[in-house]
Amino acid sequence: MNPAHTTAAPAAVVLLSGGLDSATVLALAREQGLRCYALSLDYGQRHRAELDAARRVAAALGAAGHEIVRLDLSRFGGSALTDHALDVPTDGGHDGIPITYVPARNTVMLSLALSWAEVLGAQHLFYGANAVDYSGYPDCRPEYVAAFERMANLATKAAIEGRPIRVQAPIIALRKAEIIRTGLRLGVDYAMTVSCYQADSQGRACGRCDACRIRAQGFTEAGVPDPTPYQP
Amino acid sequence: MNPAHTTAAPAAVVLLSGGLDSATVLALAREQGLRCYALSLDYGQRHRAELDAARRVAAALGAAGHEIVRLDLSRFGGSALTDHALDVPTDGGHDGIPITYVPARNTVMLSLALSWAEVLGAQHLFYGANAVDYSGYPDCRPEYVAAFERMANLATKAAIEGRPIRVQAPIIALRKAEIIRTGLRLGVDYAMTVSCYQADSQGRACGRCDACRIRAQGFTEAGVPDPTPYQP
Repeated sequence: MNPAHTTAAPAAVVLLSGGLDSATVLALAREQGLRCYALSLDYGQRHRAELDAARRVAAALGAAGHEIVRLDLSRFGGSALTDHALDVPTDGGHDGIPITYVPARNTVMLSLALSWAEVLGAQHLFYGANAVDYSGYPDCRPEYVAAFERMANLATKAAIEGRPIRVQAPIIALRKAEIIRTGLRLGVDYAMTVSCYQADSQGRACGRCDACRIRAQGFTEAGVPDPTPYQP
Repeated sequence: MNPAHTTAAPAAVVLLSGGLDSATVLALAREQGLRCYALSLDYGQRHRAELDAARRVAAALGAAGHEIVRLDLSRFGGSALTDHALDVPTDGGHDGIPITYVPARNTVMLSLALSWAEVLGAQHLFYGANAVDYSGYPDCRPEYVAAFERMANLATKAAIEGRPIRVQAPIIALRKAEIIRTGLRLGVDYAMTVSCYQADSQGRACGRCDACRIRAQGFTEAGVPDPTPYQP
């Protein structure tokens, strides 16, 4: 039994992609003594292995609940992560906002987390945004997180009735190596996580895409072995 | 061919529930000369006739596109509109926030509209919130709309690149009778719309729930015949 899973513990909804960052965030939320409900989005992403990873991570880190909400954003088009006509970039050298950006995806996910939080009576949302490695993504910046929190506190019955929502983005200012060291301290098994944009059905990483590059460099900088399973 | 549907016209995403309010908002958006993309949410609502109404209204008002996004919010529970164990209120006399409130539903819908808007290059979101008849709903207040707009302008690639998002809630301060008069002036056929929380499969209203009461009173106050089909 997860020690945080008692009726007395305040609840949190934690966005869990199945990647390295959100697994670390779940571990951090649990360290705060919160009862953690993990939320994943099945949004038609090409890298389906991510969702299998999310299931493993939620179980391993003792989430009190885990929901995978199916929502087909690929019908809107416009991202290499959902649009099979676009190639995933592997050059690492692009400027500006990567084409792997999914329009407003994080806003949609945080809104779903807000909906679930209101039903659960949870006042904490945890969001694994990172402004260092993903500096090109507008919704990974602290000012965005603050604006979402402010909106949430005007949106909900709970907030109006005196139970404000707090959006925590605890790894937003950390480098990948620092995130990895934090997770290892908290017992995260990163072999369970999938960061690769084009992992195979067994969750093995390509080793070439931008997500793989950033991740591998993080393990190198942290000075720990990289447990990522790679494709042969 | 809809005269607003040219490549030159700026695009708008309009939330369309199939009810009286959002049909009027679609007509208002079109009056501004915008190319209108209607977005409906199939969120497991009990009143399925709403979605049929949305299809009819989108076609009748010349929407350039209409998407119905399926998203099962009922798995989160907590509202009489999605939870079949709760009764829809018919007494009209409750205080505070009605139990027909669906947690954060409007925030989820606006977030989806934002996602589609970004793909379409649309800078306008239209939202049929009304602060007069639905004063108990936190996300029907002007300060909420302003906070969502501010968040949206920090969230998206489009906003960062100099194409800000504007969230318009053109009926937020109107009484039901004023909304009806506006729609009639713009050619809305309200017989097509469904407001009832428990309409039957043919879209006929119960005449007893709060939504029916507010709607019928609106037609009376506007001094026009009520075209609503009622259940026998």
